[in-house]
Amino acid sequence: MQKKNLLYAQSGGVTPVINATACGLIETARQNNDKLGKVYAGKDGIIGILNEELIDTSKESKADIAALRHTPGGAFGSCRFKLKGMDESRAQYERLIEVFKAHNIGYFFYNGGGDSADTAHKVSQIGQKLGFPVQCIGVPKTIDNDLPITDNCPGFGSVAKYVAVSITEASLDVESMSSSSTKVFVLEVMGRHAGWLAAAGGLARREKDDPPHVILFPEIILDEEAFLSKVERAVNTHGYCSIVVSEGVKNQQGQFLADSGLRDAFGHAQLGGVAPVVAGMVTNALGYKHHWAVSDYLQRSARHVASKTDVEQAYAMGKAAVQLALQGKSGVMPIVVRTSDQPYRWEVGEASLAKVANQEKMMPRSFISKDGFDITAAARRYLEPLIRGEDYPPYDRHGLPKYVRLQNILVKKKLPGFEI
Amino acid sequence: MQKKNLLYAQSGGVTPVINATACGLIETARQNNDKLGKVYAGKDGIIGILNEELIDTSKESKADIAALRHTPGGAFGSCRFKLKGMDESRAQYERLIEVFKAHNIGYFFYNGGGDSADTAHKVSQIGQKLGFPVQCIGVPKTIDNDLPITDNCPGFGSVAKYVAVSITEASLDVESMSSSSTKVFVLEVMGRHAGWLAAAGGLARREKDDPPHVILFPEIILDEEAFLSKVERAVNTHGYCSIVVSEGVKNQQGQFLADSGLRDAFGHAQLGGVAPVVAGMVTNALGYKHHWAVSDYLQRSARHVASKTDVEQAYAMGKAAVQLALQGKSGVMPIVVRTSDQPYRWEVGEASLAKVANQEKMMPRSFISKDGFDITAAARRYLEPLIRGEDYPPYDRHGLPKYVRLQNILVKKKLPGFEI
Repeated sequence: MQKKNLLYAQSGGVTPVINATACGLIETARQNNDKLGKVYAGKDGIIGILNEELIDTSKESKADIAALRHTPGGAFGSCRFKLKGMDESRAQYERLIEVFKAHNIGYFFYNGGGDSADTAHKVSQIGQKLGFPVQCIGVPKTIDNDLPITDNCPGFGSVAKYVAVSITEASLDVESMSSSSTKVFVLEVMGRHAGWLAAAGGLARREKDDPPHVILFPEIILDEEAFLSKVERAVNTHGYCSIVVSEGVKNQQGQFLADSGLRDAFGHAQLGGVAPVVAGMVTNALGYKHHWAVSDYLQRSARHVASKTDVEQAYAMGKAAVQLALQGKSGVMPIVVRTSDQPYRWEVGEASLAKVANQEKMMPRSFISKDGFDITAAARRYLEPLIRGEDYPPYDRHGLPKYVRLQNILVKKKLPGFEI
Repeated sequence: MQKKNLLYAQSGGVTPVINATACGLIETARQNNDKLGKVYAGKDGIIGILNEELIDTSKESKADIAALRHTPGGAFGSCRFKLKGMDESRAQYERLIEVFKAHNIGYFFYNGGGDSADTAHKVSQIGQKLGFPVQCIGVPKTIDNDLPITDNCPGFGSVAKYVAVSITEASLDVESMSSSSTKVFVLEVMGRHAGWLAAAGGLARREKDDPPHVILFPEIILDEEAFLSKVERAVNTHGYCSIVVSEGVKNQQGQFLADSGLRDAFGHAQLGGVAPVVAGMVTNALGYKHHWAVSDYLQRSARHVASKTDVEQAYAMGKAAVQLALQGKSGVMPIVVRTSDQPYRWEVGEASLAKVANQEKMMPRSFISKDGFDITAAARRYLEPLIRGEDYPPYDRHGLPKYVRLQNILVKKKLPGFEI
């Protein structure tokens, strides 16, 4: 029997460790080259597959593939592109199968969040229907940590560590200067719908008086009065107040705070980030001098301060995806299963894509304190192991991380063009 | 002869390594306790000295003092408070001498920038005049890198490394997604008057096509048209554009871009950071989707990604300050002297406070490319060694850096209060 090739694609926002998953997948496939063909990767994700732009990863050296483990970003490119239902997007699904056929693809690995799990699930169904069965495996990834069933999503732990380390450090800075200068510091973190990353900021608070003193979650409508009184109390008690705010915080009117009214000189609405809005609110009401930071993509790409647990799990997901394929599985996703909290123990499990697809795992209310401004012991128990351990990238002699840039050589096209 | 005590104070904005300087100073003083008394530290800087709030560092354990080497922030507190000229601030200078007398202070170490060097210089003069000679030693520190004579300022190298690493990582992220999503990323860095930190972003660009593609310096009035055409060219060539902007960039009218017109819902001017202004400018003119980050205090406290060169120099400055004191010197500051670029070699030198005081070292025009949007080879030669090497803090088993919090026990007051 002719060996079938593998096709891997990255989907949606990238993470500090999505390439570690690619590394695990490619290395495991190479180790099994008696049964498996080449690993191709979609250039810029599924758009590349539709365009028949397939990267031949067999052209990359062993060392470069190994370096993916410590390189942030998406090495093959990614995209935000969601295939709709079968009826609406039938031509696209059929095109995928056509590309699979043309390039002898037997296994499709889609590395993303809930949308990608849904797409992978549908592709496995349409393949059957069209008489070209492809084993479709979802591979979990998202810094938002919003996939169900899996203990956590690779990518989340490293960004969580970045947030916890950053608010620890910035708070030491603010505290130093607070007697005569800045009294309030606001750090904005990602998470438009779920407060997992904002909650991670709470890990910095090891003792009762430690910062951050206030966390604003997207799950909790902002009670401005309660918030301001909490800030005032922190300043009176500690001399300063350190705040972590999720980009998704909403006001009483249900609007994102970040959209709530900044205008440029011409009166155009300006999406200004939520941190400056919150900081301005504090200064207007209480008069404290503030500073704020919006870490944006810095948090999502901060491989230099990745969590070892996260890197290991990301790699393990790539490896397990190939192992599932070798077992003849389709329509499944490898997941992280937590078998113990203390000590933290985990193993690789599997979930059906049908169950993972299009489900958002919200943060349980029991993870947020009663007053809505802090995390609970349960949240801490869940989150803490995920930021554990350090896994530094190698640095070059100029003081910069040695991140790899692949050659990304495309396979020769065999099909006519396709209008996406 | 009775041993004299040492008094150390941190001044102005803190850095990731100002405590490494404190560590070098205290450890060296302890090694010389046959000649030197205790090391006191001003609580919250010179304000604490005026208030007779002196921290007795001899109460801290050897391990805790050693941990200062890897702890960001200012361990004894700092402040922004500038003593004016002798006539205007005579009462304050006299108060300092009074406090020195009361606590048997023979050596005053002021760890800061140009203002602090000026103050230390004046204190040494007034001590002589009032018949209580104190050896006054300036100790260099500033992330802005704006002190003259010294090769660089401890603190700068680590923040420079943070900037170069961060723009490297975020650019990989943007590049991954650029075919279908964000095309322009803007990172705002500190440096209101001098573009040293913005220039450090240029170190990320090792090959011609590497990011960042545009750097905006405070030294160069923004030519909006040239800027936009540079951004457009980068997007056309690379698919995306990565930008580092100094907070101090000004428009043709000489205003800070950060002040140029954001208003909140009530029409109040809102200091929004320069990154969102620049990003908005790009999107309005060229339609590209953007993301932006303002790292603010994160950059200034990022000990987790400190430069080894910087940590070593910061420690060496503290050590050298005590050695200068032991040599009977006053009115001087230890400095870093560069003896070779390649390989980078440096040694400790000394400068007269009179020459350092109140001088700002601007970035030479020869460090900025002719078009005003890049650094030159000369800048690279100067900057590169300063971010070299890694010096990680230890981490605890929960995945967070083990930063020390000192006890900061105050010495018993001996004087009546003083109205600052």
